[in-house]
Amino acid sequence: MPIVHHERILMAHGGGGRLMHQLIESVFLRPFGNPVLNAAHDSAQFLPPTGRLAFTTDSYVVNPIFFPGGDIGSLAVHGTVNDLAMSGARPIGLSCAFIIEEGLSMETLSRVAKSLAEAAANCGVPIVTGDTKVVERGKCDSIFINTSGIGIMEHSLCISPQGIRPGDAILLSGDLGRHGMAVMALREGLQFESSIESDSAPVHQPVLAMIQAGVSIHCLRDLTRCGLSAALNELAEASGLALQVEESLIPVNEDVHAACELLGLDPLCVANEARFIAFIPAAESEMALNVLRSFQVSGNAVCIGQVMNPGDPAVLIKSRMGSIRLLDMPSGELLPRIC
Amino acid sequence: MPIVHHERILMAHGGGGRLMHQLIESVFLRPFGNPVLNAAHDSAQFLPPTGRLAFTTDSYVVNPIFFPGGDIGSLAVHGTVNDLAMSGARPIGLSCAFIIEEGLSMETLSRVAKSLAEAAANCGVPIVTGDTKVVERGKCDSIFINTSGIGIMEHSLCISPQGIRPGDAILLSGDLGRHGMAVMALREGLQFESSIESDSAPVHQPVLAMIQAGVSIHCLRDLTRCGLSAALNELAEASGLALQVEESLIPVNEDVHAACELLGLDPLCVANEARFIAFIPAAESEMALNVLRSFQVSGNAVCIGQVMNPGDPAVLIKSRMGSIRLLDMPSGELLPRIC
Repeated sequence: MPIVHHERILMAHGGGGRLMHQLIESVFLRPFGNPVLNAAHDSAQFLPPTGRLAFTTDSYVVNPIFFPGGDIGSLAVHGTVNDLAMSGARPIGLSCAFIIEEGLSMETLSRVAKSLAEAAANCGVPIVTGDTKVVERGKCDSIFINTSGIGIMEHSLCISPQGIRPGDAILLSGDLGRHGMAVMALREGLQFESSIESDSAPVHQPVLAMIQAGVSIHCLRDLTRCGLSAALNELAEASGLALQVEESLIPVNEDVHAACELLGLDPLCVANEARFIAFIPAAESEMALNVLRSFQVSGNAVCIGQVMNPGDPAVLIKSRMGSIRLLDMPSGELLPRIC
Repeated sequence: MPIVHHERILMAHGGGGRLMHQLIESVFLRPFGNPVLNAAHDSAQFLPPTGRLAFTTDSYVVNPIFFPGGDIGSLAVHGTVNDLAMSGARPIGLSCAFIIEEGLSMETLSRVAKSLAEAAANCGVPIVTGDTKVVERGKCDSIFINTSGIGIMEHSLCISPQGIRPGDAILLSGDLGRHGMAVMALREGLQFESSIESDSAPVHQPVLAMIQAGVSIHCLRDLTRCGLSAALNELAEASGLALQVEESLIPVNEDVHAACELLGLDPLCVANEARFIAFIPAAESEMALNVLRSFQVSGNAVCIGQVMNPGDPAVLIKSRMGSIRLLDMPSGELLPRIC
């Protein structure tokens, strides 16, 4: 059957027939190719290394799909790899499911697919299974991607909100707000003297290195939608403990600050894609910081606070002026479609 | 914080803050709840039973989301459980990621979530991790769902297209075309004397029972998008063999036939959601059929043909009149958004 070259996505590219197979072979299998995926069965099959499994899923609907520092393809890899990393898991396989709008240019789709493949290769994780759907023009917004990930936990730690203990140091892996403000600035058509780049990047290596170094990590949480504020509030709630952080210790770049002021946003509520907090026994926090700082992605890791003695679960923040106030859970309406 | 009851989905329900947590707790965690999911960490963690893993993903964009015999929620479970079953895998965990259109009624979302939860419970598989995104009105079509699934293969068979051998019997698990025609009839506003119901159902039990009974299954393939024609063509291609089936042996219900004629469709190219073909050594085909027929979902299983001696990979179909013709790969434009 002759292969007809199409410049734009047609409904038939999602129909399950000849055109879908041509699309999968030309746009996806070429960049994604690996033995498990190439077997092209209904599911990927593999013998996992011994250990507990971590399993996670995320759909990506970021708008626009290309932004300074990344795109929806690389984001879909980093986000899911990082979710696995928050269990201290090494990623061993990703799935990748595209929902594509009819009429999307094949060039755009290819660019996203290549970026996704490159990000996965950089993380050392194969894409082992996938799916392609096409919906009519106007029924989605160019591309939505779901990636699910399987990771293996090669350690005996129980990294979870329930592991948090009074006295734990709260470490932050770097400066806040870059992903959210990179996307928002683009969307709002803001021009800044220095353009803000998303921090989108994988963080599994510094996490695995901390475990390797013997740091007894109590809990990890990435700072995606609604940023540090939401993560701290979720963990205060889940652990039943009060968490206190110090505003002056939380790094925020100047241009992010400026953009946040312009849009009336709090950098603590803005999404990041390579930032996480780690709850570490105070005695091990220096060791943990040294490990984190040996990786570029977490080169500016700092301690921003600690877990207080039991009390009501709450998040307290000490301002630059020394006053202490509650840091509330953001409601969530400010930054839609950031990831 | 007081819980405000919203009747419709707001953008903030996907924002990562307070409203998203309320949505997840009220609409998802209640029906889906299980210990792994309730741990509410970034990823589900569990120790898998020993064996090879199967891993699969599918996004569901079916339109309309409710149809005779099912809805997008139950479909999202059956489709992914069935993909795992096609490896002979027992499903052990599902992920579930919703992309929801702003303004969708909370009642509709709840109805879908409950149906999804019920289908998963019926399959004996927990939903262990999830994700919720909301996009602006007009940027998706009410609900898209991605489910990914992990299964465990508790057998030593290598069930794959490469396992197909000349002489294998080709078994079909039941009548064709009901899912596709149920959705199409509804969409086209067709009225039939007897309304067609989707066949949407899980098929892992008959598959696992065949394995249990010692049937040395060579290959399995579900007949979803583009139906039997696409599945046979894919497997002819992947195995490098010629497959021959007999039209008169392929069961199609009268009302499906009538609907197909009206819409100019071939029932062999129409999607099913509980139908599969099994490639079985001829000597074991009676045993396999007996096992399949002991389950309601595959009660009408039949042998529809066999794998020919090596030649060019092709799918041949013997008509009711006795003539033999090529059964082509459908191009895929006829039945959009069927799953």
